[in-house]
Amino acid sequence: MNFCSQCGHPVAHQIPPGDDRQRYMCNHCGAIHYQNPRIIAGTLPVWQQQILLCRRAIAPRQGYWTLPAGFMENGETTRQAAARETWEEALARVEVGELYTITSIPHINQVQMLYLAELPHPEYAAGPESTEVRLFSEEEIPWDELAFLTISNALKLYFEDRRNGVFPTRHIDLNH
Amino acid sequence: MNFCSQCGHPVAHQIPPGDDRQRYMCNHCGAIHYQNPRIIAGTLPVWQQQILLCRRAIAPRQGYWTLPAGFMENGETTRQAAARETWEEALARVEVGELYTITSIPHINQVQMLYLAELPHPEYAAGPESTEVRLFSEEEIPWDELAFLTISNALKLYFEDRRNGVFPTRHIDLNH
Ligand SMILES: [Zn+2]
Ligand SMILES: [Zn+2]
Repeated sequence: MNFCSQCGHPVAHQIPPGDDRQRYMCNHCGAIHYQNPRIIAGTLPVWQQQILLCRRAIAPRQGYWTLPAGFMENGETTRQAAARETWEEALARVEVGELYTITSIPHINQVQMLYLAELPHPEYAAGPESTEVRLFSEEEIPWDELAFLTISNALKLYFEDRRNGVFPTRHIDLNH
Repeated sequence: MNFCSQCGHPVAHQIPPGDDRQRYMCNHCGAIHYQNPRIIAGTLPVWQQQILLCRRAIAPRQGYWTLPAGFMENGETTRQAAARETWEEALARVEVGELYTITSIPHINQVQMLYLAELPHPEYAAGPESTEVRLFSEEEIPWDELAFLTISNALKLYFEDRRNGVFPTRHIDLNH
């Protein structure tokens, strides 16, 4: 950040009065430009014991497999964000269930939330950010080609929990 | 937002190529300035069956009672944010437990997360954003003077759950 988005003057990186951390501040109009973590929302879509994964068409981790997930937008709930991302990346309409994993990733200022979801029909296709979308049984999961640690964590937990038939919300802090 | 924070030129509010919603875009340097929901993290601090509440020194809802909570900062986990806010508003060191409520509030672009927490000692005091901090038994809770619907929801659920001895994570969508 170089310029004030309110008045266009250069900003300084300094600690505002009464605060205890550096912010981008405008000494012309007084605006303080806070920066906060963003939420990634997504689903773990299931159809008849199989999981829907997407092969990424874009960076980061292009070519690797992931669960459908992306940045939550203003004006939506976390569940709506999870369903929208599943539609955009996998062209699949899902019934979003319970929150399954919530992962803080402080070194990249993100909190990821994955919801259990049901595919009512095996209908899906690659959206613009995917090159391929398909269902995988547990034995078929491409463990060495998963895009992110949060995704392999969620899938491992899911298959463990499935053996017990209970799916508690898992709270994970990923430290770099 | 009026000016590009990267290059200082005026921004336009328009739909970028390949996107489906309006963003603040800079037609000079090409930057797209996304705006995303923010996370409010806090605790429900308990000491010997009593709950710690703070009377707000600042807007909004100045003079009303709330649980300690505030905006999550970059570089921290949700639990760290919850503990830090409890320290800042109530000068209380808590042991943060399980996620208790997660509430989407789409009309103000917020997701609020409240954690169960234990006060090891009844030591607390008003921080700069509070005028008064004290412990309340269930009978003493000032229901008509609570600052936010999310706070009264969490407290009602807590007293119900306490009768049953189980505190499942509650997922709430607040529609305006
Ligand atoms: Zn300014
Ligand atoms: Zn620009």
